[in-house]
Amino acid sequence: MKSLSRIFLAGILCMSIGLPLFPVLADEGMWTFDNPPTKLLQERYGFTPTAEWLEHVRLSSVRFNDGGSGSFVSGRGLVLTNHHVALGQLQKLSTPQRDYVKDGFYAATTSEELKCPDLELNVLVSMEDVTTRVAHAVPKDASEAEALKARKAEIAKIEKESLEKTGLEAEVVMLYQGSEYWLYRYKKYTDVRLVFAPEQQAAFYGGDPDNFTYPRYDLDMAIFRIYENGQPVESKHYLKWNARGADDGELVFVSGHPGSTERKQTLAQLEFARDYSYPAILKILKRRLGVLRQYATLGPEQARQANRSIFGIENAVKAFTGEYNGLLDKNLMAKKERDEKAFREKVAANAAWQKTYGSAWDDIARAEKGHAEMFQAERYRSLRGTRLGTIALQVVRFPTEMKKPDAERLEEYRDSQIESLKFSLFSPAPLYPGMEEVLLANTLQESLEELGAADPFVKAALNGRSPAEVAKEIASGTKLTDAAFRKSLVDGGEAAVAASNDPLVAFARRIDAPLRAMRKWTEDNVESVATAAGEKIGQARFAVYGKSTYPDATFTLRLAYGTVTGYPMNGTKAPYKTTFYGLFDRALGFDMKPPYNLPPRWAERKDRLELSTPFNFVTSCDVVGGNSGSPVINRNGELVGLIFDGNIESLVGNFVYIEENNRSIAVHPAAIIAALRKLYDAGSLADELEGKMARAVGAN
Amino acid sequence: MKSLSRIFLAGILCMSIGLPLFPVLADEGMWTFDNPPTKLLQERYGFTPTAEWLEHVRLSSVRFNDGGSGSFVSGRGLVLTNHHVALGQLQKLSTPQRDYVKDGFYAATTSEELKCPDLELNVLVSMEDVTTRVAHAVPKDASEAEALKARKAEIAKIEKESLEKTGLEAEVVMLYQGSEYWLYRYKKYTDVRLVFAPEQQAAFYGGDPDNFTYPRYDLDMAIFRIYENGQPVESKHYLKWNARGADDGELVFVSGHPGSTERKQTLAQLEFARDYSYPAILKILKRRLGVLRQYATLGPEQARQANRSIFGIENAVKAFTGEYNGLLDKNLMAKKERDEKAFREKVAANAAWQKTYGSAWDDIARAEKGHAEMFQAERYRSLRGTRLGTIALQVVRFPTEMKKPDAERLEEYRDSQIESLKFSLFSPAPLYPGMEEVLLANTLQESLEELGAADPFVKAALNGRSPAEVAKEIASGTKLTDAAFRKSLVDGGEAAVAASNDPLVAFARRIDAPLRAMRKWTEDNVESVATAAGEKIGQARFAVYGKSTYPDATFTLRLAYGTVTGYPMNGTKAPYKTTFYGLFDRALGFDMKPPYNLPPRWAERKDRLELSTPFNFVTSCDVVGGNSGSPVINRNGELVGLIFDGNIESLVGNFVYIEENNRSIAVHPAAIIAALRKLYDAGSLADELEGKMARAVGAN
Repeated sequence: MKSLSRIFLAGILCMSIGLPLFPVLADEGMWTFDNPPTKLLQERYGFTPTAEWLEHVRLSSVRFNDGGSGSFVSGRGLVLTNHHVALGQLQKLSTPQRDYVKDGFYAATTSEELKCPDLELNVLVSMEDVTTRVAHAVPKDASEAEALKARKAEIAKIEKESLEKTGLEAEVVMLYQGSEYWLYRYKKYTDVRLVFAPEQQAAFYGGDPDNFTYPRYDLDMAIFRIYENGQPVESKHYLKWNARGADDGELVFVSGHPGSTERKQTLAQLEFARDYSYPAILKILKRRLGVLRQYATLGPEQARQANRSIFGIENAVKAFTGEYNGLLDKNLMAKKERDEKAFREKVAANAAWQKTYGSAWDDIARAEKGHAEMFQAERYRSLRGTRLGTIALQVVRFPTEMKKPDAERLEEYRDSQIESLKFSLFSPAPLYPGMEEVLLANTLQESLEELGAADPFVKAALNGRSPAEVAKEIASGTKLTDAAFRKSLVDGGEAAVAASNDPLVAFARRIDAPLRAMRKWTEDNVESVATAAGEKIGQARFAVYGKSTYPDATFTLRLAYGTVTGYPMNGTKAPYKTTFYGLFDRALGFDMKPPYNLPPRWAERKDRLELSTPFNFVTSCDVVGGNSGSPVINRNGELVGLIFDGNIESLVGNFVYIEENNRSIAVHPAAIIAALRKLYDAGSLADELEGKMARAVGAN
Repeated sequence: MKSLSRIFLAGILCMSIGLPLFPVLADEGMWTFDNPPTKLLQERYGFTPTAEWLEHVRLSSVRFNDGGSGSFVSGRGLVLTNHHVALGQLQKLSTPQRDYVKDGFYAATTSEELKCPDLELNVLVSMEDVTTRVAHAVPKDASEAEALKARKAEIAKIEKESLEKTGLEAEVVMLYQGSEYWLYRYKKYTDVRLVFAPEQQAAFYGGDPDNFTYPRYDLDMAIFRIYENGQPVESKHYLKWNARGADDGELVFVSGHPGSTERKQTLAQLEFARDYSYPAILKILKRRLGVLRQYATLGPEQARQANRSIFGIENAVKAFTGEYNGLLDKNLMAKKERDEKAFREKVAANAAWQKTYGSAWDDIARAEKGHAEMFQAERYRSLRGTRLGTIALQVVRFPTEMKKPDAERLEEYRDSQIESLKFSLFSPAPLYPGMEEVLLANTLQESLEELGAADPFVKAALNGRSPAEVAKEIASGTKLTDAAFRKSLVDGGEAAVAASNDPLVAFARRIDAPLRAMRKWTEDNVESVATAAGEKIGQARFAVYGKSTYPDATFTLRLAYGTVTGYPMNGTKAPYKTTFYGLFDRALGFDMKPPYNLPPRWAERKDRLELSTPFNFVTSCDVVGGNSGSPVINRNGELVGLIFDGNIESLVGNFVYIEENNRSIAVHPAAIIAALRKLYDAGSLADELEGKMARAVGAN
């Protein structure tokens, strides 16, 4: 399953810097909409998307800012995504009395649709190449650290100017490891309401074991509606519903937001990931999972609170394990080594190229060596996995940062980003102090064990006291669980923050300096080198191979293509699709024991279903985490599926795409319609999706 | 799928000589009935089989002499086995007009039951330890070759004496690499009649892709009835049918005839298999498969003729590929190396042991080195894959061998074996000269390519002529396709054979000498060393570890135990069972394209089935090729399943049993009853199986 957590954790792990190793072959690639693979598509499939086709698909595509994708599926603002993308909002809308995660939700009329506390959706409305402007902002003979600073300042300036000029969310995206910078402008939506979600057991059937596997039987869907000015938005661009779906072997596309990939990293970066990042992150996540599972045993309400996090961590552990196994695969690494060698030889064969680009790989290798020495500190001088810890630091930093000139702030406090930060910081979504306390105690205990009591961060955090004691004091004594209190502190400025005797605010004040120092060290010693060298490698690639490929994923809109097709699996073949029959086979095969129990509705209403209805299917489209919720689209620009996962073989896709068995998994549109009509009494929603009639719009 | 071909081919490849590496753990082992794992069973499952239980299971078990297992399932001689074990007989009973392989068969009354042309079934009635007698027969200071000869002579003598005394088929079995010899006596049945077989498409659903995989949906069953004196035999010992089957986690047993394993071979032998035997056999089989597939394209009758062989070779290729991959797995080989090293160190630590056994491993390694040098000749100085070639050699050799004293004959012509050889040699089963011709041409062409025209065997076979020409002459000109002609030659003795101008007989006379020479070389240089050294290693193992384990498989009756249980698969879990639902899911998942098309009866009568009926299931019982058709038995000695295959992960079981994911696959008894009653209108057969009423016995 492709999920939020995976993207964000991957973002923490590795910066997306590297090199394209070879011209693209096969159904590979996450292409930017300014550079679609028209030649490949024409050669392989005799199809060339028109500019109108591309625009229609782009404007029908929706980014879920907390880490996922979706698409408009009606002219009145319906947005289709995955249940697991909606999960955070479902959890936040739930209460101890009413659990939408477990029981699902359906608004029979628009008046029953539920406003989400902090869901921001984006639609990419324009793209502009700003490479030259960013490049010109870097002074000649600047050090790597100075260059990084200058680049970031210019990017902030570009974003701010654009925001002021257009009112659209602006984001400068680094592509091809810094060989290109693009200004992406987004239409932003913040009034998003929940229309439909099935029970989690229907959406995530088979649970953690079946996650990232196939054949599957998941109704991993949720439907929201976007509002503007209190009314459903008129969505001119939306994907027409095609309940027939796509045939075996048919060409299809996926338009969505792959989070991050490391396909073009250098060997030194991959080795660093293999030897340091992955072992550490897996260790950290497994420990946290144990803490949350323990918390969930305390009672049904604790279980409800922890459900979302447990799901996210299990998902991340499984994804990272698959990726890590890729790095441990000697064949894969040998191939990476061969490819890098061949590329460097091509560069070395041209004196001018060698002079300009030749040092880049060794620069990175040197930086990674230093990075390794500092790794333990970098990894454990932080608060890991606590929402309250993040909020507290944001509250403390907010006034300080806002006083600085825009270009000198930490990036997330720049004018172009600040609205999004405020939207999340002041969200009314509930926080669970009991759970936060055990998570804080865990992260502090872990830092103490890994770094020792004398470490500056540990000292600032604990000052000799026990992690449990400190966690109890700050989690149970704080008022930061209240959004209004957070806002009052931020509004009160530096003085209010400095004067607060809230124990968590005081704690955040103490750890702010060591955390800032650590962050600066990484920027100056790793990120700056990787950015400078990555840019050289990216340019070398253009010089050697031309712009025949796609950039590593950046959680921005990409187009993937491929066919609906099975694959060799475990000694036999995986079918291109599954049906409702298979759900009942799998349930019975485990005697209906969790996670293979059927949602009661599915067991009771089984006979209403035509069991031969297609349920899930697979495509060779190249997708990764972040693509969750992406539409599968046919040549006619119609919706023929809903991406929700990749198979276990696709996890090495973080480093390499293997056409033979890399598959993305989608929900079939016929299954969605059948479930809505036969199981969920949601015929009017199905009618709206199928364009059969406008849905009654209730009083609002 | 565990099948005939696999056993026989494996027998050709490697002699079962080696060493037990460590005491047995887990659900491992194919135990002889004289040494059941009572201690392990009591410790793990709190169950101890009584002597009566063991006798009941043993006498209910049936060996299919052409390579498979089965069991008595009624008091009137019904024997249950797999469709693919019955396949040879189904093919032989079929005609161009009536294809029982494709269409299945059901005898509604006993009078309609079809007598099989050459099916011999055995039941193991007694076992006697003859180790001392065999050992005493070897003169002191005999060379390895002399010792082998003396041993074989004594074995022939024991078998002959037993046959004369008891009238029972006698077979001396070498166990624990020659540390033990046992005289097994079998009740032999040769009047065996076909009662029921489903369509091959129901029995072998999913074809070659799904072979050796799971989850599965196969009705891989067939039912015979044993007759004596023209009447159904009264089978006192038979397994009571338990249509409930076994629960998830339940202790179960498998009683059957695993063909051969190489778990206790030395590292040198495994390396020889990896570097020589497997690459060669796979090359040979793939070439022959191509020839047969080509032949099958000539027309529907040719396709019908070739079907059984194509099935067998595809099965063998898949099995050998899985085994070969095991040998290529560096982890597996490293473990074998570590275990051998540890064992040898234990032997070396005791001066007496070292003196007696210490040289064995190096002896084998030296022999394998010589074997490698002669490998090409040994492999290609033979007729491979032709029934007519085998028959011709047997006809030519029969009178010559029979003139010799029993102990000096080639083993298959000894008195104890001769009835079985005659039963198959004089079988009225049809032969297809067209198909035999292309197979003869192929094997001769291959020998020519691999050995060159000057090789003594090639020279004797071709004498400068082309393989196609020779094959045409001998296959189209021979009368050996007629069983009566074969018998007349054999009855005519050496003179008749020498005088025959049948071109195939003349051909067999020419190649007899070089083939005998090759066989003698292997006996003197490889088998004799391996037997002598293997015996030492086997004895060393008893000395070091005690008799805490089971011998490698020898196509003799063994008891395996384990539980009904799923396993980790491809990132998720395989269920412990499948249901009829899953069959329809898999069919639709491939749009019903072959080999996933449904037999028409199954599609048309689907609504008669309760789809939740269990279909196939998996157990951790340790089985290999030859176990096909074995009953799965519960603590009460009832039949709860029918073994028909192993999963892809079980193929390395030839070398090592891994409890985590080695699984045998069985048909559930409930699926058999449901299919018989609802799909095949065979209610009276189902009644007989379930003991509900005696079946009408028609005039015979």
